[in-house]
Amino acid sequence: MSDFIGETTDLLRRTPDLLRVLLGGIGEAWTDTTDVPADGWRPKDVVGHLITGELTDWVERTRRILEHGTSMPFDRFDRLAHENRDSDASLDELVERFATLREENLTRVAGLVNEDDLDRRGLHPSLGEVTLRELLATWAVHDLDHVSQIFAGMAGSHDAEVGPWKAYLGILLRREDPAAVAG
Amino acid sequence: MSDFIGETTDLLRRTPDLLRVLLGGIGEAWTDTTDVPADGWRPKDVVGHLITGELTDWVERTRRILEHGTSMPFDRFDRLAHENRDSDASLDELVERFATLREENLTRVAGLVNEDDLDRRGLHPSLGEVTLRELLATWAVHDLDHVSQIFAGMAGSHDAEVGPWKAYLGILLRREDPAAVAG
Repeated sequence: MSDFIGETTDLLRRTPDLLRVLLGGIGEAWTDTTDVPADGWRPKDVVGHLITGELTDWVERTRRILEHGTSMPFDRFDRLAHENRDSDASLDELVERFATLREENLTRVAGLVNEDDLDRRGLHPSLGEVTLRELLATWAVHDLDHVSQIFAGMAGSHDAEVGPWKAYLGILLRREDPAAVAG
Repeated sequence: MSDFIGETTDLLRRTPDLLRVLLGGIGEAWTDTTDVPADGWRPKDVVGHLITGELTDWVERTRRILEHGTSMPFDRFDRLAHENRDSDASLDELVERFATLREENLTRVAGLVNEDDLDRRGLHPSLGEVTLRELLATWAVHDLDHVSQIFAGMAGSHDAEVGPWKAYLGILLRREDPAAVAG
């Protein structure tokens, strides 16, 4: 296993436990607020979106690159697939579902990808040619991006409680003005 | 213990394990980049800043409110105290130091604060009058704010590796332009 694959899957392997520590059994007072006030996502939406990635994106696109190269573009990613699929599940159930899928997918990728494959190319329907290395790095950074979104929603749930300290808390200021700078 | 105290300390109690899961034994490829390109903080700086909060801020200010009310303002918080103090420590050592301090401080606060105390007031040197409830809520949201900063640095460490997908990854775009919107 190359350094790149080992390093990337090391991050990917941490995300399920991270979500368990952050969200397991936590009260709705922390999880019932969206990351941004308008059209935002609650933590439950974010975990649902991560589940969609495990179901339809990362490993499927890895296979597409290995089997078809740039001759067959990736399927488009449905960013809202979780909305109907997960409406009856609890947040804890979704975190466990994600953890199971992630573990299965890391096993699959370990069996599919070698260091020599990382420069192989696929065709993204909007972005054009991409490499397998870029796909795997994006999988990991996508985790970081969306877990940050969970943090923003959790912070937002206590926007009113911090009183005047809000002026120092960039995570709250940026929910309303992305360019805000904490004092 | 009131719902507010229980709910707030529930979040505060999770942060050490969160940092262990995220950072424990991880390679420098993920941790040697700052959250923003200019004058940013590496994960090690962020954990150092959280340690400073445990050493000099949250519990000290709680005591100040309970002992002096608004008659004696809080001491100012040294946002850069970690720079010299922690330069020889490893990231893993800092996470464990933080975990020990946090556990001690949660025990202290449990012995100091009752629900009836939450509306008691203190004097912030810049913000003016604040309540103990606001101080405790800020302690928790401050954790979320700074752990998000760690995520931004970790994502930034792989900025080049994601290739054209950067256009979709807000966590990378915002490092360079806070108002950027992912495509």
